[in-house]
Amino acid sequence: MLETVDFSEGALPKDDYKREHDALMERLVVLQQQARSAGVGLVVLFEGWEGAGKGSRISDLMFHLDARATGVYVGLDADEDAERSFAGREWGVTGYHPLMQDFWRALGERGSITFYDRGWYSVALQRLRLASRCHDDAAGEEARCLESIRDFERQLVDDGYAVVKFFVHVTKKGQRKRLERLHDDPVTRWRVPDRKLAAAKGYDEAYGLYDRLLERSDFDFAPWVLVNGEDKRRANLAVARTLVDALERELARVAAPEEVAASGEAGESPDAAPAAAPIDPHAPLEGAALAAAQAAADAASARAPRASRFPIRADYPQVDTVDHALALDPDEYRRRRKDLQQRLFRLENLMYQRRVPLLIMYEGWDAAGKGGNIKRVAQALDARAYTIFPSPAPTKPELAHPFLWRYWTRLPKAGHVGLYDRSWYGRVLVERVEGFARPDEWARAYDEINAFERDLVDWGAILLKFWVDVSPDEQLRRFHDREADPAKQWKITPDDWRNRQKYPQYKAAIDDMFRLTSTTYAPWTVLESDDKRHARVKALEIIVAALEERLGE
Amino acid sequence: MLETVDFSEGALPKDDYKREHDALMERLVVLQQQARSAGVGLVVLFEGWEGAGKGSRISDLMFHLDARATGVYVGLDADEDAERSFAGREWGVTGYHPLMQDFWRALGERGSITFYDRGWYSVALQRLRLASRCHDDAAGEEARCLESIRDFERQLVDDGYAVVKFFVHVTKKGQRKRLERLHDDPVTRWRVPDRKLAAAKGYDEAYGLYDRLLERSDFDFAPWVLVNGEDKRRANLAVARTLVDALERELARVAAPEEVAASGEAGESPDAAPAAAPIDPHAPLEGAALAAAQAAADAASARAPRASRFPIRADYPQVDTVDHALALDPDEYRRRRKDLQQRLFRLENLMYQRRVPLLIMYEGWDAAGKGGNIKRVAQALDARAYTIFPSPAPTKPELAHPFLWRYWTRLPKAGHVGLYDRSWYGRVLVERVEGFARPDEWARAYDEINAFERDLVDWGAILLKFWVDVSPDEQLRRFHDREADPAKQWKITPDDWRNRQKYPQYKAAIDDMFRLTSTTYAPWTVLESDDKRHARVKALEIIVAALEERLGE
Repeated sequence: MLETVDFSEGALPKDDYKREHDALMERLVVLQQQARSAGVGLVVLFEGWEGAGKGSRISDLMFHLDARATGVYVGLDADEDAERSFAGREWGVTGYHPLMQDFWRALGERGSITFYDRGWYSVALQRLRLASRCHDDAAGEEARCLESIRDFERQLVDDGYAVVKFFVHVTKKGQRKRLERLHDDPVTRWRVPDRKLAAAKGYDEAYGLYDRLLERSDFDFAPWVLVNGEDKRRANLAVARTLVDALERELARVAAPEEVAASGEAGESPDAAPAAAPIDPHAPLEGAALAAAQAAADAASARAPRASRFPIRADYPQVDTVDHALALDPDEYRRRRKDLQQRLFRLENLMYQRRVPLLIMYEGWDAAGKGGNIKRVAQALDARAYTIFPSPAPTKPELAHPFLWRYWTRLPKAGHVGLYDRSWYGRVLVERVEGFARPDEWARAYDEINAFERDLVDWGAILLKFWVDVSPDEQLRRFHDREADPAKQWKITPDDWRNRQKYPQYKAAIDDMFRLTSTTYAPWTVLESDDKRHARVKALEIIVAALEERLGE
Repeated sequence: MLETVDFSEGALPKDDYKREHDALMERLVVLQQQARSAGVGLVVLFEGWEGAGKGSRISDLMFHLDARATGVYVGLDADEDAERSFAGREWGVTGYHPLMQDFWRALGERGSITFYDRGWYSVALQRLRLASRCHDDAAGEEARCLESIRDFERQLVDDGYAVVKFFVHVTKKGQRKRLERLHDDPVTRWRVPDRKLAAAKGYDEAYGLYDRLLERSDFDFAPWVLVNGEDKRRANLAVARTLVDALERELARVAAPEEVAASGEAGESPDAAPAAAPIDPHAPLEGAALAAAQAAADAASARAPRASRFPIRADYPQVDTVDHALALDPDEYRRRRKDLQQRLFRLENLMYQRRVPLLIMYEGWDAAGKGGNIKRVAQALDARAYTIFPSPAPTKPELAHPFLWRYWTRLPKAGHVGLYDRSWYGRVLVERVEGFARPDEWARAYDEINAFERDLVDWGAILLKFWVDVSPDEQLRRFHDREADPAKQWKITPDDWRNRQKYPQYKAAIDDMFRLTSTTYAPWTVLESDDKRHARVKALEIIVAALEERLGE
């Protein structure tokens, strides 16, 4: 692709440039405000050669744009971090953070513009270079990188962002001249130390890698725009024109009545029918209410995807086949729990030193015993080693981002434990059943989640997904218990009762979730929790076994 | 103080312990939920000897508390960070972050519990140790530390948090035994490397420093609780009892009708009178409306503090004495601006290498030209080097924290530039005039701000505070201009017109702000901006001069 950049055009007269530039900037300023009101997000990535002037292109825009709705991410240390993370994988050590986390963190709200001065392609390039040097599977590495990148950009586009990708190209001679100029000025020398000057010698090798990477990531939903970095004026105009076009297109799309789905479906939430007649949340679910709930459940399931594009285990769980009779007697429980907790404590110390990230995720019916189960795991850990991440109702900034953003920004560091009391699966459980997400949103969430979890596992994380199950009868007993105990009353809310009235909808959502997200690399495990002792010991056993396997103990 | 800890009590029988512990935890769980509803924040600091069991005390509590409203801050690397920051000051280099920033960042919302496993006293101790070794002014260092600490804790208490401080004490023999045990076990050895074992030899020196520090920071609003760390059971009970007491006291205080001020004053906002009669925001302010506005302004000023407890410059500015005639002709402007921007570019490169943090703060009348002024500064900087921090309406999490929290969490790293388009002074400007803050809140904010800015300057930051001034007539002309220009319409809102009707209240607030926050270490500068060219060149001149002075250019 790079060969299509035309370096032969003559200089653009200053006055012509200024006239067009002023007009474009004025238009861009107005469009930015419109995008802000319309909730159109813009992700603008600048990739390109070291010294090609990416920073100056961004500065030119920043001068005119509204700082309140503009963010700049600078990938200064991307090289080192990527090198460490990647090299680590060879030796069984992981980077502190997953590779894409920084980019997720920097992502602005819908309605804002986020500039990335270097981004995920720089990281990919670094990985490919190392792969070609360190081991044989360079092709596999390329495929993995491209898949992660495609999933990331696709999710942004699906979520209402326009993704604009610039590659600022300069010739080998041009690059050398620029780097030397920066190097020769004592004021800017620190930016181009000798090692970077030397790196410029790798232009030819990098050219091939870049060209291939660009061609393969020129997605129709996020195509590349190649910019001639040797002509400042033309570069500024090309960038501004592209952004004006992108915003105009997005604003037109948002203004037009949506063909696909949305507007009609948003109101038509799966539980519209049962909500019409006021129901007593304490009443047993039967008769007409049950039939209506079942119909809503079936309607929602019909909208769920037929299959995932990720590898799914054949033996995924199902709600109906959970064995509620599994139990453990108190003495046996105490003995095994203590033994497992002691082993976990030792393993966690090892894990910390080896920098393994551990994510333990709990979903489950209300009152199934998630909290108590988590506490028995945490009890074995040093308070410094773990974080419990609850999932309260999303905040306004969270709602203005893709739903996975709140989890991308809440990951444990490598060597630490993240315990999730409910999780990203809320999208396909409560948000699906209650209509907080549109059907097109939750339907695509299964594979968005699978991609997210693949990135975590790729990073080196151990990811354990627990479904804490309880039978409807036992749940009812616990609800009554909670209401009677002052120390537990805060644990029961009217929502818990209302959820019981939606048992068929939840059951259908859970079964779809099992069917579509029991990937080979992150399968679900059911913790049968009618007897909480059984569920706690089972959880500890699985955690200990996973750590022992990874740590080779 | 440490000598008051009684290590001689006999062991507590397990059954007695369990009974009391269970009862306390049950109570604590209920109180935590009540505190959550009532918005009572709890800050729980654990300081004490290495190996004294601070982490275990926190784990004991975490097992019972509701993770959704509990946070744990772990100061693992505090030692190293403090050492670097402090040692750096000697050589004119600063730490990446101000010392208290981590603690501010970790602070949970009102209604939650935040545990600090080591905190600001550990940092202070480190500074004192280094001070006593590296230079002569150990006493001055101690005074500075204690003042920062007192201001921090005071602000939390004023803001609705209870601050509970535990010091977990062990004897010299006890500490050695614990550290050796951790060191001898291969699983935990990494926690007590040889260097830490060796550090324990400094027990006697540290004892003196701790004792003195504790005595001097035993504030009535945040007293110390000394805990016998050698007796796990008694320690857990003492901690739990203290927390139960603290929450009960706070809940009682919140439930009781407030004696001081609040309830009555909250409604009685300074502009209550003019708001009563609907006014035309476009009308000139005169007659009865002017009289009412002036009365409201005087009433508010009467509530402002007489004086600050920080050193104030005698020559602080005043709104009435601003010279609106200052101006610069276009050619002279272009020449000087370009020259200054070039010098700034070079200085910023130096500053980056020397790790000097630069904060440039803009406040000013609507349409005074803050944004354009900021852009001329940013224009001279590399896009990688600066961040523009706007101050939109506070979010829900921000409102649930002390008002300075949003700024403590938005500071540039050392070597970077933070440009603030409006700032923490909103508390004593718009929040005072519009009644968004209660009079007791904005009245104490002046010195809270002075303390905040002292901490920044102590860190090594250059802090420049610009008031961008414009005469009422020129402002009116600009409002009309903006309304007529499609590219500028987003810059004018009905609020701008309404604010003009409150000119006397804003003027009084600005004058109080100048009078109470023009500290010797962070004075105000007025940028006379009827002629924007003059204001821009003046800002650049001041920035360049400040950098040249600091960098010795």
